[in-house]
Amino acid sequence: MRDQGQHERQDDVTTMTGKSEAPLPPGSCIGILGGGQLGRMLALAAARLGFRTAVYAEDGENPAFDVAKAARAGAYDDPDGLAWLAEVADVVTYEFENVPVATASILARSRPVLPGVKALEVAQDRLVEKRFIAEAGLPVATHWRVDNADDLKAAIREADAPCLLKTRRLGYDGKGQVPFAPGDDPQAAFAAVGQAPSVLEARVAFDGELSAIVVRAADGAMAAYDVPENVHEGGILRRSTVPSRFSEQTRLKAVAMAQKLAVELDYIGVLAVEFFVTRDPANPLIVNEIAPRVHNSGHWTMDACVCDQFENHIRAIAGWPLGDTTRIADATMINLIGDDISAWPALADEPGAVLHHYGKAEVRAGRKLGHLNRIKPLS
Amino acid sequence: MRDQGQHERQDDVTTMTGKSEAPLPPGSCIGILGGGQLGRMLALAAARLGFRTAVYAEDGENPAFDVAKAARAGAYDDPDGLAWLAEVADVVTYEFENVPVATASILARSRPVLPGVKALEVAQDRLVEKRFIAEAGLPVATHWRVDNADDLKAAIREADAPCLLKTRRLGYDGKGQVPFAPGDDPQAAFAAVGQAPSVLEARVAFDGELSAIVVRAADGAMAAYDVPENVHEGGILRRSTVPSRFSEQTRLKAVAMAQKLAVELDYIGVLAVEFFVTRDPANPLIVNEIAPRVHNSGHWTMDACVCDQFENHIRAIAGWPLGDTTRIADATMINLIGDDISAWPALADEPGAVLHHYGKAEVRAGRKLGHLNRIKPLS
Repeated sequence: MRDQGQHERQDDVTTMTGKSEAPLPPGSCIGILGGGQLGRMLALAAARLGFRTAVYAEDGENPAFDVAKAARAGAYDDPDGLAWLAEVADVVTYEFENVPVATASILARSRPVLPGVKALEVAQDRLVEKRFIAEAGLPVATHWRVDNADDLKAAIREADAPCLLKTRRLGYDGKGQVPFAPGDDPQAAFAAVGQAPSVLEARVAFDGELSAIVVRAADGAMAAYDVPENVHEGGILRRSTVPSRFSEQTRLKAVAMAQKLAVELDYIGVLAVEFFVTRDPANPLIVNEIAPRVHNSGHWTMDACVCDQFENHIRAIAGWPLGDTTRIADATMINLIGDDISAWPALADEPGAVLHHYGKAEVRAGRKLGHLNRIKPLS
Repeated sequence: MRDQGQHERQDDVTTMTGKSEAPLPPGSCIGILGGGQLGRMLALAAARLGFRTAVYAEDGENPAFDVAKAARAGAYDDPDGLAWLAEVADVVTYEFENVPVATASILARSRPVLPGVKALEVAQDRLVEKRFIAEAGLPVATHWRVDNADDLKAAIREADAPCLLKTRRLGYDGKGQVPFAPGDDPQAAFAAVGQAPSVLEARVAFDGELSAIVVRAADGAMAAYDVPENVHEGGILRRSTVPSRFSEQTRLKAVAMAQKLAVELDYIGVLAVEFFVTRDPANPLIVNEIAPRVHNSGHWTMDACVCDQFENHIRAIAGWPLGDTTRIADATMINLIGDDISAWPALADEPGAVLHHYGKAEVRAGRKLGHLNRIKPLS
């Protein structure tokens, strides 16, 4: 399956995915950029299919290293480190969307990098992302490009309502964003986001949040999981519940939108799309964010579906047929954040619950340290 | 949790299990003797709970090495290797019952070795095992000790019916056994089992086979899985099915017998007991074999129970509360033996099925290379 050839154009990346090739056989090595819990759960899923894994991540606590066949810490722009990963891995994926595009592009010269460079480019920049979504004909929140305090001043005049100022890059779990309303000081707000290129987003009056977790195979086949309702607190996901209280029509619409984005991105792997559910029947869903990877709001699939999101991501990037996304139980996923994890002895004793502990030693506020899937028979 | 003290008496081993101690915290290291698929699946389950794993096994293909934090190949009587395992692991378990008792005893001087040395001693010798079961008041097949061809001659005269001659030690998957009937040549039969100390077993007229997979915690709490019907071919398990066609009474009786044996062994961990189901209503169950470990006939629990046998074994040896054994789906587990594994592309595409590929490179007849769990909604 190894391809030692040089591929100059990024377009070639998708031709290396095995669309017309045999699936990557068990025993092959899946390379993973990023060593956190998503990488760890991807590695565990890959092992179930008989794959080996190699994880490359920056220095720090990397729980994925503990379950990988091979692991190496280094900078994402270290040529030696990237050469190592390209050498040991047959295909490369990533656990987070802030892998530098340059890193992915370098690796893509010698190995398939999936879901792909385009998905990274789109997901790394809130402005590019919103434009991409809008160009795909899907609804996004009204937004303004903000490169300086003057832009912000002009934008809030036009918005004339409370908004959120968000950096275009490197925001996650509520980081890199501040509320901004008419009358607030633009200089102070722009300083609060580090004077980084940003977008001002109109706040959406929403009734709830949901996400579509879809997966697209190398041959273009697509599947989707049931659509959970998500509850965030302080910008961090607290819990996801299936079945959600939203109508079947709304849920199917969310899946269709996410699959449209997957096609537009020529995407291979699991794609998560977060939505606001509005009170406007004519426009019930607004796309909030795209995550070109397995997603926290899909962790319940581990214990409530025939094939979970992690295995399906591995299947897709390995050119395998997609796994069965059928839900076989009702589920609520509870994130264990910061001190929540100290309750593990009690959580481990809860009937009908599956505890996932990420094995991280460092406990600090806002850090995701595990999750609990509460499982019930299908309602 | 580490105990550097010396423990001279084997009795002390059980006092090191944490019966009155706090459970072993995530981040601790589980040592596993044996590097096959059972060790691999134990390591994957341990990772879900936030544990690290260290695997020690003889040279050869060791698929468990690929998912462990640390791994080392060496002989089971190599003092350096055992010292390494005792150093890195907080508790030690084993994936197979033929770990030398001496190995377990050496490790037990510095670390808890669970399920324990006694379980190994009993399970390693068919004669000791049968006597142990009988002393616990449970039914076993009529059997005779055979140390030479003369013993065999005398035994078959008494049996006066077709029997099986089995070596006392190192038999598994139908190895080390030959049929033996009145009129057969005792010299030839005894030669066929390598002239090893053996037992002659009367054949049991059975209607089917089932196994009880039970788990006993450090505090003596017990749980059990639903009882599968098992089908063997050529001495190797082919498939296990839940729910089984046997009556609830029979299933509960099997669980009660297995739990009695667990108590008698002062056992901690998952214990599997295989039974023949007879046509005799007064004596419907005969104990065939004890496996002091996770068991092939429990692999369906991975995709059909809240907490599977592997996680429950890790929980028990780590002093955790037992996990919920509730079955949430019907299931049939199909072993993929030898060339069966070449069908993986088709098996991966089967709706409602979960493929487990052990990642072994060497495909040969009789080798267990994976299994398929076919899952259906609860009937």
